[in-house]
Amino acid sequence: MTAPGTLYGLGVGPGDPELITLKALKRLKAVPVIAYPAPSEGPSIARGIVADHLPGGQQEIAVRMALDAKQFPAEEVYGPAADAIAEHLDAGRDVAVLCEGDPFFYGSFMYLFERLAGRHRIEVVPGVSSPMACAAVLDAPLAAGNDVFVVLPAPLDEELLAARLAGAEAAAIIKVGRHLEKVRRVLERLGLLDRARYIERATMTQQQVRPLDQVEPPAPYFSMVLVHRRGQAWR
Amino acid sequence: MTAPGTLYGLGVGPGDPELITLKALKRLKAVPVIAYPAPSEGPSIARGIVADHLPGGQQEIAVRMALDAKQFPAEEVYGPAADAIAEHLDAGRDVAVLCEGDPFFYGSFMYLFERLAGRHRIEVVPGVSSPMACAAVLDAPLAAGNDVFVVLPAPLDEELLAARLAGAEAAAIIKVGRHLEKVRRVLERLGLLDRARYIERATMTQQQVRPLDQVEPPAPYFSMVLVHRRGQAWR
Repeated sequence: MTAPGTLYGLGVGPGDPELITLKALKRLKAVPVIAYPAPSEGPSIARGIVADHLPGGQQEIAVRMALDAKQFPAEEVYGPAADAIAEHLDAGRDVAVLCEGDPFFYGSFMYLFERLAGRHRIEVVPGVSSPMACAAVLDAPLAAGNDVFVVLPAPLDEELLAARLAGAEAAAIIKVGRHLEKVRRVLERLGLLDRARYIERATMTQQQVRPLDQVEPPAPYFSMVLVHRRGQAWR
Repeated sequence: MTAPGTLYGLGVGPGDPELITLKALKRLKAVPVIAYPAPSEGPSIARGIVADHLPGGQQEIAVRMALDAKQFPAEEVYGPAADAIAEHLDAGRDVAVLCEGDPFFYGSFMYLFERLAGRHRIEVVPGVSSPMACAAVLDAPLAAGNDVFVVLPAPLDEELLAARLAGAEAAAIIKVGRHLEKVRRVLERLGLLDRARYIERATMTQQQVRPLDQVEPPAPYFSMVLVHRRGQAWR
């Protein structure tokens, strides 16, 4: 009987191909099968990050999202993807799922993990996350000392965003996208507009750093606002 | 005239030498001078993480902390260290400061950064942070979807810890150390004890994962409690 394969959740980092870890790279090159999230049509960002590192000859599973993530039940995408991956694992083939940033930090890997954990051996290789990448690009410390640091998804309700932001010294507001104007209102209310920095696609070739008041909504999905009460004003 | 050197803040990751990025490794090997935090006596953890990667022949600056960090003013340690680094930069030599985890995420690099920024060219290479490393080791997703995720330094006041923890779906309580019993009380009050996982020195060779009620205080400095309201109970 063949020993079952291992599922690797590989953090490939925020975008710059050099921000992958040695460990993820080693696993990536060793597995016979890779899987990655992809849009309904066109190339996968996660695969693009590691494209130059791929040894060739690997089987590939593109986990394609529907055009509007809100209009499809996750089961329709992740169910079949998990089944396809499980088939390889049962046949003794290791599978690496490529994850932008870190697999367990707001990643879609979670949907595969919850379907496959328990039944299969899983190893997660942590990766460099986008808040850290954004801070590095912006030359702006994220948190220090006894700061309370909070990660706030921008789709949250305006009042909740304001309350949680008020209770922290520093924050990363993620998934800004079409919530840009709400985020600006919240920052203005709290007097934090000049402590906020906007960045999109950090460390990717299309990276953009702009003053928050010069961003045209909607922002892209891969956009973030970093805030620090003691941080420098926009330079 | 010699062109001035660049100061690199290199995230070397949480402890496993393979969790360094390709980028940090490249910079590490290229610079003539490295600097790193170290205890008042004995070896530096940050240097230990990269020891096998060092090319040899580099000048080294150990930034030695006093025995009790609370009893010394930062200026006495970081002032002279920043001066020593600046001397190399002015002479045209690049200097890499080795940072456990990520340089801008609760790192002591901040103290050098605030003394040298503006006067010198600085580039930060982000690294894998300890919350992500802990989540990977614990096989426990850190945050997903529209979770509010908060990082709470355990030295904070008990009431503040409780309030901030109550306002988040997921949390990483860092710097647990001698605050272990306070952290346990807060978790118990909020009914989160069975949603909390304790880990120390994640990805290092001395890594320990233990049920929270079996940890003898004080915990080491490199210890963390991860909490998720929807997370699985301790397995």
